[in-house]
Amino acid sequence: MGRATDRRSVLRIDLSAERRVVRRPDSLSVEEPLEIRVGPAGPGRRRPLAVTMRTPGDDLDLAIGFLLTEGLIRSADDVHTAQLCAGTETPNTYNVVDVVLAPGVPEPTTDPARNFYTTSSCGVCGKASIDSVRTRSAYRVVDDPMVVPADLLAALPETLRSAQRGFDRTGGLHAAGLFTGSGELVVLREDVGRHNAVDKVVGWAVRENRLPLAGHLLLVSGRASFELTQKAWMAGIPLLAAVSAPSSLAVDLAAEAGMTLVGFLRGDTMNVYTGDHRVTCGPSSGSVRPR
Amino acid sequence: MGRATDRRSVLRIDLSAERRVVRRPDSLSVEEPLEIRVGPAGPGRRRPLAVTMRTPGDDLDLAIGFLLTEGLIRSADDVHTAQLCAGTETPNTYNVVDVVLAPGVPEPTTDPARNFYTTSSCGVCGKASIDSVRTRSAYRVVDDPMVVPADLLAALPETLRSAQRGFDRTGGLHAAGLFTGSGELVVLREDVGRHNAVDKVVGWAVRENRLPLAGHLLLVSGRASFELTQKAWMAGIPLLAAVSAPSSLAVDLAAEAGMTLVGFLRGDTMNVYTGDHRVTCGPSSGSVRPR
Repeated sequence: MGRATDRRSVLRIDLSAERRVVRRPDSLSVEEPLEIRVGPAGPGRRRPLAVTMRTPGDDLDLAIGFLLTEGLIRSADDVHTAQLCAGTETPNTYNVVDVVLAPGVPEPTTDPARNFYTTSSCGVCGKASIDSVRTRSAYRVVDDPMVVPADLLAALPETLRSAQRGFDRTGGLHAAGLFTGSGELVVLREDVGRHNAVDKVVGWAVRENRLPLAGHLLLVSGRASFELTQKAWMAGIPLLAAVSAPSSLAVDLAAEAGMTLVGFLRGDTMNVYTGDHRVTCGPSSGSVRPR
Repeated sequence: MGRATDRRSVLRIDLSAERRVVRRPDSLSVEEPLEIRVGPAGPGRRRPLAVTMRTPGDDLDLAIGFLLTEGLIRSADDVHTAQLCAGTETPNTYNVVDVVLAPGVPEPTTDPARNFYTTSSCGVCGKASIDSVRTRSAYRVVDDPMVVPADLLAALPETLRSAQRGFDRTGGLHAAGLFTGSGELVVLREDVGRHNAVDKVVGWAVRENRLPLAGHLLLVSGRASFELTQKAWMAGIPLLAAVSAPSSLAVDLAAEAGMTLVGFLRGDTMNVYTGDHRVTCGPSSGSVRPR
């Protein structure tokens, strides 16, 4: 429980001039299943809702964040209790989170013909039909007045990377970092699944009663997918920045939401795909002003 | 339908000396939902089984590969028909694959208490309980006698990358390449979801009646997760190589299966996590021979 890295023996092969072959221990990112069970207040049975392959740690945040970004809860008030508990495994791996909803909060439907709620490195997982892919955000971000200098944005990946502990050891963890509009890192979470990293950030914010996350921005270490964009919107975040490429649907959803979407945020450069009124550039040459 | 890339307008900001800001078109990887419907032969109803967020193209291979790696079919013989058809959207987006199983092939269970089959960038998605995460391979790979020189492995990422068309345009597509033991690229597939790329490769092989893929190796452009390892095993592939890091559970599953798992396959170096008897190094210094 809670181990983010583990060690395995590895044969390291180096084919450069000396051609060295050495057996040595290597640190790996831990990946284990987490089952999220949800049930009503009272004596009702909690039912398995989702399994996500995640890096142990911050599991309650992960479960709460998942329920929020899937539209199943609106705030921490919708959760009566959430506890990490034993699965059926021996030894006890603490790979189950048991969530009891507050009175009056509807149970998630698990009608197979409607939609399932399950995930791994993605939020859309577990939806059996296209209609169920979309969730509706409780928050309107289009009017969020946050404005961020491009120079500030350009500095954030280095801040995120230097705060990432697991990546340095394993080279295999995604990170999601929540920043204020002035560039202060509020919370950072790592996971083998990028969607889990975002759910852990959002779940932390839910438990801290910080939603909606107006005036904040979310930076992710990889690509910006439809699901990550949707998760940011569900938490009321007006700006999503990704170190790598966005997908077409991520851009389309960000445009619909009135979010700012920044991609390829690397070194001195970035692409602003939507909501470029929130990014200021200062004096520049060759400038073509947005609209 | 079939568009792998699409264009959006982007504000490109370059903060280096000249501080240029230019609006220009940018190519993005297309991400769209694909609904997989499955039903029995005859007049029975096809039910939505899974939605995956994928890059359009090779959708039948994706559906067939998904069904195989999820353990729902064993070969192409288990599929009566598979066709790309219209969803409920207007205009028709061809985002539904309708699969009719051959007579006698059991329908997948969608009992919520058991397991769901849905996916996005992951194979484990849509499983509601931990017990349902594991599938059983029909193939035994532990005895596969394939042996590959490390120098041959080291050359494969460049082969994969140079064969990737989409990545050069968008920087945002995962790739999975199936190679023979002598390093010939058999088939390459790209997708915004790495698990989709693998399912497209496996589905192609299923439809070509090439399973089990004994004597072949699979190279993936990203990390090696539990799910990717499981998919390779389901297809009978004895060696999985990844450009980036494996997870702990990927290594454990590969060891259990008797597969060879290579990670951090970059430049002149690589890590062999399991099954290192399949990787030969030739003359080397500082050698510590595997067991």
